[in-house]
Amino acid sequence: MAKPLIQVALDTLDFEQTLKLAASVAPYVDILEIGTPSIKFNGIGLVKALKAAHPRNKVLVDLKTMDAGLYEAKPFYNAGADIVTVLGVAGIATIKGVIEAANAYGKQTQIDLINVPDKAALAREGVAAGAHILGVHTGLDAQAAGHTPFADLQGILNLNLGATVSVAGGINQSTVQQVARAGAGIVVVGAAIYGAASPAAAAKEIRGLVDAL
Amino acid sequence: MAKPLIQVALDTLDFEQTLKLAASVAPYVDILEIGTPSIKFNGIGLVKALKAAHPRNKVLVDLKTMDAGLYEAKPFYNAGADIVTVLGVAGIATIKGVIEAANAYGKQTQIDLINVPDKAALAREGVAAGAHILGVHTGLDAQAAGHTPFADLQGILNLNLGATVSVAGGINQSTVQQVARAGAGIVVVGAAIYGAASPAAAAKEIRGLVDAL
Repeated sequence: MAKPLIQVALDTLDFEQTLKLAASVAPYVDILEIGTPSIKFNGIGLVKALKAAHPRNKVLVDLKTMDAGLYEAKPFYNAGADIVTVLGVAGIATIKGVIEAANAYGKQTQIDLINVPDKAALAREGVAAGAHILGVHTGLDAQAAGHTPFADLQGILNLNLGATVSVAGGINQSTVQQVARAGAGIVVVGAAIYGAASPAAAAKEIRGLVDAL
Repeated sequence: MAKPLIQVALDTLDFEQTLKLAASVAPYVDILEIGTPSIKFNGIGLVKALKAAHPRNKVLVDLKTMDAGLYEAKPFYNAGADIVTVLGVAGIATIKGVIEAANAYGKQTQIDLINVPDKAALAREGVAAGAHILGVHTGLDAQAAGHTPFADLQGILNLNLGATVSVAGGINQSTVQQVARAGAGIVVVGAAIYGAASPAAAAKEIRGLVDAL
């Protein structure tokens, strides 16, 4: 079967700690994600530093853009981001702005479907507008309330829209093969890596589970 | 009549240019807002620099938090933000996290009602949870499509929830008195100040219009 890309969410705030964490897990993952709290805390300099240190990994900046899509996203693609996220709840005008910025640099836009009421309709609209990746995402606050992304993942995959489908929300060693088998093209692992005693060992274990598929 | 506070949105990306713009308009406004694209571009250092330069103004950081409310917002209050925004579409768990962070520092949380389908219901839920300010907001991408915040402003004011109501979305010299008379407690002016040939002159003019009420 087609193996998904592995994305690690770097959800610490400290600049140097983020780079240290990235260095320890980069050999085992495909995409290094700068989390939303981290990009707001650190600014665009972290994108430049991360891409310079890891030119062979893709860098995703989880901007979760809500407005002014082109204006907000463009400098991040220019700084080295391979993927930038835009919120589905932002609406199609903002989504189109981020896609325009991505296309200007030959990069990719991911629509984060978090909290979108009609995910199928928005997914169709976004892919028709040129979005490259659909992100099925259960946020941290929703995870704390017991929610998971698995049912939504199946619903989006069943649409067969042709875009890559990314899944995020509490994925760990016990669920990564399940979401890969379901058809996710990108699996995002956060706390199961950055919260592990050894993030490198956890990333290596996830890589092994994906490679074994 | 009660005069509203004037908030200026500092929507340039450049760090030094933002500080220069703030210095030119600070004497005429109450609240200095670091816009969402700017905080993502510059990071938390801009909050510290802006607050240090303008201790007598309030500083609003337009974080537009969508998830991980407490985790994302707390360092910004700690850095000197007087007001931090959270998206209404984030849902009540995330909103409560930002309010918890605000209360820990004796500061304020603003719920941005942008794109919230049922604004009245969310406004009631947010104020019951302790939100201090309700932001009626037509984004830049929606303004480009011809939308304004005026109808929504009246709807939120009519609820009489006791929270301060802020209004943003293309407000300028010709509309600032209208929204103030309607009952807005904070009027946000963006392009009409930062896009003016003389931002200081534009801010002084807005101040004169508010003081004349």
